[in-house]
Amino acid sequence: MAVCFFGGRHMNASVAIQTLPEVYDNDEIVRIVDEVIAYIKSTGYKYYVGPFETTIEGDYDELMDIVKECQHIAIRAGAPAVMAYIKVSFKPDGDLLTIDRKVTKHHLDEK
Amino acid sequence: MAVCFFGGRHMNASVAIQTLPEVYDNDEIVRIVDEVIAYIKSTGYKYYVGPFETTIEGDYDELMDIVKECQHIAIRAGAPAVMAYIKVSFKPDGDLLTIDRKVTKHHLDEK
Amino acid sequence: MAVCFFGGRHMNASVAIQTLPEVYDNDEIVRIVDEVIAYIKSTGYKYYVGPFETTIEGDYDELMDIVKECQHIAIRAGAPAVMAYIKVSFKPDGDLLTIDRKVTKHHLDEK
Amino acid sequence: MAVCFFGGRHMNASVAIQTLPEVYDNDEIVRIVDEVIAYIKSTGYKYYVGPFETTIEGDYDELMDIVKECQHIAIRAGAPAVMAYIKVSFKPDGDLLTIDRKVTKHHLDEK
Repeated sequence: MAVCFFGGRHMNASVAIQTLPEVYDNDEIVRIVDEVIAYIKSTGYKYYVGPFETTIEGDYDELMDIVKECQHIAIRAGAPAVMAYIKVSFKPDGDLLTIDRKVTKHHLDEK
Repeated sequence: MAVCFFGGRHMNASVAIQTLPEVYDNDEIVRIVDEVIAYIKSTGYKYYVGPFETTIEGDYDELMDIVKECQHIAIRAGAPAVMAYIKVSFKPDGDLLTIDRKVTKHHLDEK
Repeated sequence: MAVCFFGGRHMNASVAIQTLPEVYDNDEIVRIVDEVIAYIKSTGYKYYVGPFETTIEGDYDELMDIVKECQHIAIRAGAPAVMAYIKVSFKPDGDLLTIDRKVTKHHLDEK
Repeated sequence: MAVCFFGGRHMNASVAIQTLPEVYDNDEIVRIVDEVIAYIKSTGYKYYVGPFETTIEGDYDELMDIVKECQHIAIRAGAPAVMAYIKVSFKPDGDLLTIDRKVTKHHLDEK
C-alpha cells in the first residue's frame, strides 16, 4: 500500500471547503472569502481554488483543523454568521486520488 | 441578540455530517455508520438522525472536533477509506435556527 | 437483484435537497422553505424533513424534476436568489438503502 | 439589474456536480468520471473541472437537465450505482458571481 508524503508531511486526505459568509453584497462576499483563501494559502498545503470550493491536500487531522479555522476567519473578517459545506476524502493507508491526477489533464483543453 | 445555551453549553452552531465508508455491502455500511451515530450520541449533544446525514447542535469548536472524530470512528470500525459531507451553520452571537424550529412541525403530518 | 416499488412507482433513488433562499430574516427563510416543503409533500412521494435537508424517495428522473422545481418555488415565494445543496443516491436495479432502513431505529431512542 | 448572456444563452445559474460512481478501483472511477466530464464538455457550456466537482455556468433549467443526465452517463459507462453531490446558485435576474470572477485571480499565484 502506498503512503504518500507532501513536503515532508503525511498525505492521506483531500478536503474541499466552501465558506459562505451571510452577507448580501457580492463585493463583501468576495472580500471575506479572499481572506479565508489567504489563510488557506498561508498554511503551506497544496490547494486548488474552484468556483464553489477550495480543495486542500495533506494530513487528515491538520486539514480538519484548517477547515474549522476557516469559519472563524470569516467571522473575524466581518461576517455575522457563516454557512460552510465541506467534502472529505480520507484514506489512512491508501492510494488517494490526488488533485493533480483528478484535474490536470482536463485543464489542458478547458475553454 | 439572543445567545442560546443547551444543557449549560454554548449553542452557536448546527452541524450535519454524512460519513460514507468505502465498503460495498449495505449491511457493512449500516454497521459502520451505526458506530459513528453511537459515538455522536455518546457526546451528549442534541442530535437528529436523517437518511443522509446526522445533525448536531451545540458549540461550534466542539462540534467540529466531533465531526473530525467521526471519520476516525469509521476507519476503526473497519472502513479502509471514508468520504464525508459536512454542513455547518455558525452564528457566534446570533439567532440560530434550531433543529426543533426547523423540523418539529413537519413531522406532525409526515407520512 | 431487488427492484423496489413505492405506491406503484419505480423506487430506484433517494434524493436530499436543501433550498437556501437568499433572504436575511429567519422568519422569511422559514416561510419560503415551508412553501418548498409543501410542494414536495404535494408530489405524493415518501419524504423526510430534516434540519438541513428534505429527503425524497422514488424514481430518479421524477425526483430530479422535483429537485429542479424546488428552486423555482423559492423564487416565486419571494426569494431574489437561491442556493441549493443536493445529494443523490441512484441504483437503477439495485438494493437501495431506504429512508426507513436508515432512520427508523435511531428515532426510537433519540432525545 | 444585470441579465447576463453566455454564447447567446441566458446566464442565470452556476451549478457544481460531483458524480461518484460506486466502483472500487481508482482507474475505473477516473474512467467513468472522465465520461461524465466529456458529456459536460459536449454541452457547450462554460465549465470548470475541480478535484471534487465540475462547475457549469448557464441557464438554470438547462443546467439541471445536464446534472440529471450525468448520473445516467455514469451508469451507462458501467457503474452499478452512483452517488452525486450538487451545488446550485440561481439568480433569475441578478448579478451572478461568475466562475471567472471567483477563480481567475487565485490561479495566478497558485502553487
